[in-house]
This record gives sequence, structure tokens and C-alpha cells, in this order.
Amino acid sequence: MRALVLRDGRATVESVARPVPADDETLVEVRCVGVCATDLALAKGYMGFAGVPGHEFVGVARGGPLDGRRVVGEINAGCGTCARCRAGDPRHCEARTVLGIFRRPGAFAEALALPTRNLLAVPDDVPDEAAVFTEPLAAALQIPSQVAIVPGAPALVAGDGRLGILCAHALAEAGAEVTLAGRHPERASLLPAGARLVTGLLESDAPPPAERVYGLAVEATGRADVLPRLLPHVRPGGTIVLKTTTERPVTLDLAPLVVDEITLLGSRCGRFAPALALLASGRVPWSAMVADRFPLEQAPRALQRAAEPGVLKVLVDVR
Amino acid sequence: MRALVLRDGRATVESVARPVPADDETLVEVRCVGVCATDLALAKGYMGFAGVPGHEFVGVARGGPLDGRRVVGEINAGCGTCARCRAGDPRHCEARTVLGIFRRPGAFAEALALPTRNLLAVPDDVPDEAAVFTEPLAAALQIPSQVAIVPGAPALVAGDGRLGILCAHALAEAGAEVTLAGRHPERASLLPAGARLVTGLLESDAPPPAERVYGLAVEATGRADVLPRLLPHVRPGGTIVLKTTTERPVTLDLAPLVVDEITLLGSRCGRFAPALALLASGRVPWSAMVADRFPLEQAPRALQRAAEPGVLKVLVDVR
Repeated sequence: MRALVLRDGRATVESVARPVPADDETLVEVRCVGVCATDLALAKGYMGFAGVPGHEFVGVARGGPLDGRRVVGEINAGCGTCARCRAGDPRHCEARTVLGIFRRPGAFAEALALPTRNLLAVPDDVPDEAAVFTEPLAAALQIPSQVAIVPGAPALVAGDGRLGILCAHALAEAGAEVTLAGRHPERASLLPAGARLVTGLLESDAPPPAERVYGLAVEATGRADVLPRLLPHVRPGGTIVLKTTTERPVTLDLAPLVVDEITLLGSRCGRFAPALALLASGRVPWSAMVADRFPLEQAPRALQRAAEPGVLKVLVDVR
Repeated sequence: MRALVLRDGRATVESVARPVPADDETLVEVRCVGVCATDLALAKGYMGFAGVPGHEFVGVARGGPLDGRRVVGEINAGCGTCARCRAGDPRHCEARTVLGIFRRPGAFAEALALPTRNLLAVPDDVPDEAAVFTEPLAAALQIPSQVAIVPGAPALVAGDGRLGILCAHALAEAGAEVTLAGRHPERASLLPAGARLVTGLLESDAPPPAERVYGLAVEATGRADVLPRLLPHVRPGGTIVLKTTTERPVTLDLAPLVVDEITLLGSRCGRFAPALALLASGRVPWSAMVADRFPLEQAPRALQRAAEPGVLKVLVDVR
């Protein structure tokens, strides 16, 4: 089958072996894949990656209980036997593989294999292009599953990229009054009702805030210089959710964290079912976020396009 | 009255004005004061401090409802009118003063003033030398008030200094199975029953751990290089409590925090009542931690002695 392969800093579409699903796995014929910032990092050599990337997908199950259905799939594949897996959560299984990220070929391919228990059927009223947003939206919805959101309380999201916008929706769904600190005023139209977009708030020349307004803040820029600038906006006892890794280590004075008893909370993958439900509601403007689409044979161009400034989401059509 | 004064990097005992308590305050004649790492930092110019330091004290109330009683006192004095103060917790009042630390003369003096509501009577069976440990022990007990401790679950405390040992007691009282990572094997005798002391675990030449054992870790060394070494010991979903500030900023790769969904939690002052109760139980070996005592007139020598390597606690007798 054809697949996008990353190797030694190069991206090419090649013929590779079709995955053979294990007994507890199902083969999925891929229909559409989203390009994620993680894919761009892997293409640059993050984590020494070599192989087929891609983890934001929708496809059709071939075999198993969902045979013939359109499916999305949670991307962490656990060992199935450790305590965490037995409790139904492979996301932190120490022996896990991760679709298109760690020791499991990914979705920029004609087919992939995932544990059958990871797959969810996509409702008929959620088109392929929307279903591709399930994975990043689930990651955004992980925040309210980790942190209690006080209805009406102000929350600050740093970053008006793909993930920041989805985080704004996740927090607004949970009742927060969301401010998105970004660089693109025109993206205000992508925000949930009642949310606002401000520019300049977290730039290097921004003055420190007169007041600490936010009990909850989310770092979704991936820039190492943003976290120290977020801190003065957060109230004592508040929480900063780290939703993205940064390319460079962060240098941070911990004293404000200690004195103000701030919580820094890492946040990764979420559950897919709530994300699918939110996509089905029509309240997430996924179609306005799709900037471009490419066929699988042009996947390297899709990566280049997604890396351009101002581009929100690029899709790769496989089928 | 006589008091220790820090100014321009110098420590001298001088005659200063006796504090005049406000309407909601009580005068306390100081009997005994402990030297804290914060005092040593203030003496070196931390936060541009100038004035009378000292916040670990026991004294006798003069006036007010506790007139004539031995008292200890919570060190954060709030405005009394903001939402936090009205809720009974001035520790994060934005307008607070802090005894001997921020805009309120401290306890290395013949007398101090604190809001009357901050004072607690010391039980007769708690001697002065033990009562001085109320403030740091309350800070240690703040941890189980912020983090749910799973009885029997392993917890790691970094640092076998004054605060690390008290944190070990606080966690053990809450049911944790405590490991203290330190540099002084002989201090194992100061640990609570069932706790163990290990050396070398967090030094620069320590190999990374084969397994991530701890769901809870406490950074109590004040060294900027320890936090990155603590991270690989903490299980996914676990918590690292920052109990001390560090002199230098910390440089940290945030990726493990995000991928493993680790919580970093700042922790500062705790409530005094539980600390007094634990001191009264006799289970905290305060007397074995007192290395030396000096009269107030020799308080500068007390600071020097407390800064010597291997010294746990130095007291200053005022009365």
C-alpha cells in the first residue's frame, strides 16, 4: 500500500507493507487524515521518529464488530494486561504504542491497525472532514476532565492556533468565560459564543497585567517563552494547563508558583466519545478551520502547507 | 526595644521602636525564634528586604483575648476585607503583609504585633523550643491539605534538611510510605516510623531510575537542579509539590510533564492548629533537630551558624 514515510528529515510517499492486525486489533482503511503540529515536529526529527506518521484520522473498519462502519480511533494502544490497561485506560500504559507517533505506523497510509477497543463508530451526521477533528478536540476536552471548571469563571487560553481554538471550545462547553490570547484577530469568528480574542497580551513587549484575573489558564502555543508570561495573569491558587510541549526547555522562576500556590498541570490525550458528541452538535466550526486539502500522493506538500504561517488545518484525502 | 535588623547585606542588633498594635492586633512579647532558610535568603538580600526578620516564634500575648498566654501566630496578615480574608484565609490576600518577610517587622525582636485572629494558644505540654516548629510544620502539613494522600502509597521527599524532615512527618501522618532522598544518612533517626532515608538518588551522577515508583514527590531542597532529576521518579498522573523556592530559575523540559500528565503544585503556608496538635503528640523529634541556641544580642551569629553545612535548626532566645 502507499504511505507517507518520514526518514532522516525527508518526507516521501512510498509503497510499504500493509499492516496485519493482531488478534485484538482491527484493520482500518483510511479515508481522511489531519496534519497536526506533532506531525510537523516528527518530520523535523522529534523523538528520532522514522516511519509512517499521522494520528488524526477517519476510516472504514474492515473486520471486527464495526466492520464496514466509519470509525475514528484513540491513538494509545496499551499492553492490555497492566493495571492501567485493565482499568480501561491505556493512555499511560508503560508499554504502549502510539499511532503514528511511537512504535506504531500511522494514518498517512491506505490502511492502519489499532486495538478494536480503541475504535468508535462515527455518527452519520458527522462528515469525514469533521471526524478528523475528533482527536485534537478530545485532547482539548481532556482539560475539563482534569480540572474542575467554575461556571462563569474567566479562563485564559494562550494561542489561537488549531489547538488553542479547540481548547476555547472545550472550556466554553464546560461553562468558562473564555479569553483567547492570540495573534490573529480574524480568528475571533472561530470562537464559541461569549468568548473573546485579544492580541498582544502575551507578547514580549506586553506590560505585566494590573490584576491577576484568571483562575485557569491553558498554554497552547508550544512556545517556550509564553509560560513565564502567563504566570502573572493567574490568580493565587489557580491552575495553568500545559497542553503542548515546547521545542526548547523552559526557564522558569518557580518562586511565584510556590508563593501563589499555582498548579502546573500537564495534559495530553482525551476520550473520543465526548469529542464526537460535541462535533455532532455543530458547535465547533471545523469547516472554517480547514485551509487546504491534498491527496495522499501529495502528503509531503500537505506538511509544507500546514507549516506555513496562518494556516489552521490541512487535510490529506486517502480514499 | 532590641531587635535584629537586616540592611544592605548586614545584620546588626539595634534599638528600634516597639510595635504599636492596631485595633485588630495583639502585641506579643517574644520568647524564642527559629532561624529559617528564608531568613538566610533575606539576609543575603532576597526580595530587597530591609528590616526585622523572623517568623518562627513563640511568645506571650499582652492584651486581647489571649492576654498572658503563650502563643504562636500565623504569619500572613490580610486586609480583613477582601473576599479571601472574609472567607477566613488571609494567606493569599493581595494586600497582605507577612511577619518578618514582607512589610511587617518580624520576630527577632523583644516584641511583635499580629492580627489577633492569627494567634493560637500553645498547649502547656508543648515547650517553647517545640512551639517554634509550628510554622514550618504547618507549611509541611499544607501538602496533605492540597493533595489527597493514598494510604500506603510511596511518596518521595527530596531534601533531608529541616523542611524535608518535617515534610516526611507530614506525609507519614497522612499515611504515605515515605522515602527521603538526602545526603546525611545519620538523619534517618529523625524520620517517622516506617520511613527510609536514601542517599545519592537525586545527585548529578545518579542513574535514571529503572521504574517510576512515586505518585507523589516533594521538592524541599531549594536547589534548582533537583526538579529535573525528580521528574523521572514520578509516575504518570503523579504530583510534584514545590515546597521551596530556588535561588536560580529552573530550566525544565516540559515534554515529560505533558506526556505523563504530571502536576507541579506550589505549596506555601499551612494552618497552625494541626501543626500544634502534631507537636503535642510527641511524634516529631524537634529536640534532636536543635543544633544551637543564641541570645538575641548574638542573633547575627545565629544566622551564621544556621548557614553552616549540616546544621538543622538554630534558635534565638529573646526572653
